[in-house]
Amino acid sequence: MEEKKKRVLLEVAYDGTAYHGWQLQPESITVEKVLNDTLSALLKEDIKVIGASRTDAGVHAYGNIAVFDTAARIPGEKISYALNQKLPEDIRIQKSAEVAPDFHPRKCDSRKTYEYRILNTEFPLPTKRLYSHWTYVPMDAEKMQEAAQVLIGEHDFTSFCSINSQAESPVRTIYDLTVRREGENEIVIRVTGNGFLYNMVRIIAGTLMEAGRGRLSAADVKEILEAKDRSKAGPTAPACGLTLVKYEFL
Amino acid sequence: MEEKKKRVLLEVAYDGTAYHGWQLQPESITVEKVLNDTLSALLKEDIKVIGASRTDAGVHAYGNIAVFDTAARIPGEKISYALNQKLPEDIRIQKSAEVAPDFHPRKCDSRKTYEYRILNTEFPLPTKRLYSHWTYVPMDAEKMQEAAQVLIGEHDFTSFCSINSQAESPVRTIYDLTVRREGENEIVIRVTGNGFLYNMVRIIAGTLMEAGRGRLSAADVKEILEAKDRSKAGPTAPACGLTLVKYEFL
Repeated sequence: MEEKKKRVLLEVAYDGTAYHGWQLQPESITVEKVLNDTLSALLKEDIKVIGASRTDAGVHAYGNIAVFDTAARIPGEKISYALNQKLPEDIRIQKSAEVAPDFHPRKCDSRKTYEYRILNTEFPLPTKRLYSHWTYVPMDAEKMQEAAQVLIGEHDFTSFCSINSQAESPVRTIYDLTVRREGENEIVIRVTGNGFLYNMVRIIAGTLMEAGRGRLSAADVKEILEAKDRSKAGPTAPACGLTLVKYEFL
Repeated sequence: MEEKKKRVLLEVAYDGTAYHGWQLQPESITVEKVLNDTLSALLKEDIKVIGASRTDAGVHAYGNIAVFDTAARIPGEKISYALNQKLPEDIRIQKSAEVAPDFHPRKCDSRKTYEYRILNTEFPLPTKRLYSHWTYVPMDAEKMQEAAQVLIGEHDFTSFCSINSQAESPVRTIYDLTVRREGENEIVIRVTGNGFLYNMVRIIAGTLMEAGRGRLSAADVKEILEAKDRSKAGPTAPACGLTLVKYEFL
């Protein structure tokens, strides 16, 4: 007799500092591995989660998504509390809920929001070092915001994709992209899209920083986009500045 | 022949997570010890800094102050760059400058500003865990702001001082004290005064949180202040939420 299983969705927040990214890797500690191990111990089943975004080493999240199937009787919405008791303090479930048995987080339409945070001070601030990218080069946030606008919409983002990407199509839609100052010395790039190519947000951040220091204009960024050539865009900004903020399923 | 020495002031930012506070202690790693050891190695002299605020274990700083005397020829304002090359990444000098030979950071009038940060969410956010105090109890920042106002001015702060304080007088002046929301889920208490008793900011934070959850009114906080009795005030809020933001010498 087959057990009745249910599918449970988790909203997963983590500090990526100590992890080799999300995805399972032999002999490395990853967020996916910790979730699998902790859920398997908690529910006394062999649990394998399906993740929505395979964030890179050092990238953080407020709300990455994972789903898994379980025969456990504990209600879906209670799993967050039980799981948080057993997880290390750099991973915390924000929500758990039962979803349809065929719900797959990478196979349905969604909007993802990322933030890239830049600390713009003469010297690094130790309390910000793990969650922002520090640069002493003065950044003009207004110029960054102006350049950012040319990336909004549906485009071929080949210029903003690392060459080892395995994506089938380089076309993505950016719904919103803003650059604003926060407090005295931070700049936050916030971008929402239907999906992002490999390293796309970090290459956008690296390119907008070139605009912020006056090396690229908005017209230059438009040319870079149209060139469909990774070598034309700015560098890939460091992982620690990046946080997956929100996942919305449509 | 005695060498000519100069006195150098440092503005010191640090992430207090890994340290047993500022002050030298046998067999513990403290910020003062790391500064002494690193400066002594850099300048090839036996350097002992004099600190302004002896922050507790786990408390952070953007700008604590230290001074030291040196016969080294390196200009005072260049020491920040040289020292930052050798310090661990959780301590960073923000500024260095030569000051008068008799300048003592604890013996001159100053204004100190602290921030106490509260994360008010259902579950902890891992990226905020080292720099804010998390509580799931809903906090009303307006009630906290209202209660905070009764503490502004010159008062006997005995009710807001840990009983093992060694201060000569419990009278201090708070110039400014505000409670405001930051973003969707953080509350920041910012307080500026001419000095603070032992644990005073953390006890103020713990008491304002009692106001934020509706257990104390502004009138209650006024009564607590007038009682001059530590047992009447709220608990000492955890160290990790506290940051020494700014030191100004008058």
